[in-house]
Amino acid sequence: MNLDTLTRNILKKGSFLCVGLDPDLEKIPDYILSTEDPLFEFCKMVINATAEHCVAFKPNTAFFEAFGSKGWASLERVINYIGKEHFVIADAKRGDIGNTAKMYAKAFFENLNVDAVTLSPYMGKDSVLPYLEFPGKWAIILVKTSNPGSNDLQVLNMGNNKPLYINVLEKSLSWGTINNTMMVVGANNLKEFDFIREIAPDHFMLVPGFGAQGGKLGDIKPYLSGKTVGILANYSRQIIYAGDEEQIKDQARAIHQEMKEMLTSSGFI
Amino acid sequence: MNLDTLTRNILKKGSFLCVGLDPDLEKIPDYILSTEDPLFEFCKMVINATAEHCVAFKPNTAFFEAFGSKGWASLERVINYIGKEHFVIADAKRGDIGNTAKMYAKAFFENLNVDAVTLSPYMGKDSVLPYLEFPGKWAIILVKTSNPGSNDLQVLNMGNNKPLYINVLEKSLSWGTINNTMMVVGANNLKEFDFIREIAPDHFMLVPGFGAQGGKLGDIKPYLSGKTVGILANYSRQIIYAGDEEQIKDQARAIHQEMKEMLTSSGFI
Repeated sequence: MNLDTLTRNILKKGSFLCVGLDPDLEKIPDYILSTEDPLFEFCKMVINATAEHCVAFKPNTAFFEAFGSKGWASLERVINYIGKEHFVIADAKRGDIGNTAKMYAKAFFENLNVDAVTLSPYMGKDSVLPYLEFPGKWAIILVKTSNPGSNDLQVLNMGNNKPLYINVLEKSLSWGTINNTMMVVGANNLKEFDFIREIAPDHFMLVPGFGAQGGKLGDIKPYLSGKTVGILANYSRQIIYAGDEEQIKDQARAIHQEMKEMLTSSGFI
Repeated sequence: MNLDTLTRNILKKGSFLCVGLDPDLEKIPDYILSTEDPLFEFCKMVINATAEHCVAFKPNTAFFEAFGSKGWASLERVINYIGKEHFVIADAKRGDIGNTAKMYAKAFFENLNVDAVTLSPYMGKDSVLPYLEFPGKWAIILVKTSNPGSNDLQVLNMGNNKPLYINVLEKSLSWGTINNTMMVVGANNLKEFDFIREIAPDHFMLVPGFGAQGGKLGDIKPYLSGKTVGILANYSRQIIYAGDEEQIKDQARAIHQEMKEMLTSSGFI
């Protein structure tokens, strides 16, 4: 899915919600656990409940890999079930040398055929470029993540007096364009968003860390990009473990409503 | 496999060779391509040819994921085929927040049941700790990699006047111990090994970058650890694409021989 279509979908729907699919067998309802493919059945239920309220889904590969080839087959079914109306992000945080990155790009963009994959920047340029050779596909680079460990390295100042995450952001701007690169920036680090938006005013940011992790949706409003909207706000646990299908739908609807109001009062729609 | 067993295996065999399994359909022989599971059959041939000369195998998950659930099933067969006499490293370079890291640890240490998994450090401590809770299992943390992009971020000086990779090394020493943590250091960056050995004298280093990437085996000799041997030298392409089974065996044997001489002249055996 290209930038124009993504932005158009957001404006049409009044939503920049991304639903994170992290199916944890310890948390999913008993009646689903007893089915033949509980990972898929749980995700299907969440997709049915939230599709009209979100523009993107983000399956987390770890929750499928934990069950080996069987889990990977469930992931394939989930991605097929989502279809082509939503932007699909494989949250895989891969990052390896060129010839291996090419294989991962093949795994995600050809075999699974998702729109985007999250990448760790530690190995530098040649670990990212192979993903950018696929038209209409996206590399989503970790810049400032939402977990406590993001303070171990990402915020440390470099010799140029800028923190590591800003160095990563600046490098990644030179690797890709607004049409094939997004960045991950945690919602619980909003003070950093000022720097980030100054350097990357229109790039899409995939923003985790709302809800359980402490980020507030309203606080992100100043960082919407006038040109592209520029934010996909991810919710995982707060939506997918809200209860039964109706309760999941209610959660997604409430967030959708808040987003619609933000987009309206900011003059987007 | 624990540290004592690994070191004992190395000394017994006179080898610290790790064979990287990166099965690329564009490079494997035609007679294997026509089998039902060419990824597995190719790896099986390489394992048969090299098992007596190496102490570790390192399947690269990307080359299997490129074929989806079918590829992951081949990976499972490969790991089963290797068995328990060799140290098995899933070269996966994962790195994610705590609850996701827990799932990846389950994927690699319970489902696939390998000994070690490579990890990217960018997300910090809570992205590594869940792996260290599995007795006898190992986290292998990227410190200084062998690719050109390692110069984009890893060598940049931080505010403390040490490059990022040294900061990563120091942090990771505080996360784990000599019994559950190794580091990736490229063979083509030997000048950095002096710093690294000073800080981590006995930790095992997984060293890629020999052969095709320019590293020379002999140059690593000063960095063997007197206590643990402390180095696993990885060869992938130079061995696995050396030709037919005999030629692959010859390559592995030659490297084994060189290692045996290094270990002998250094007084290990």
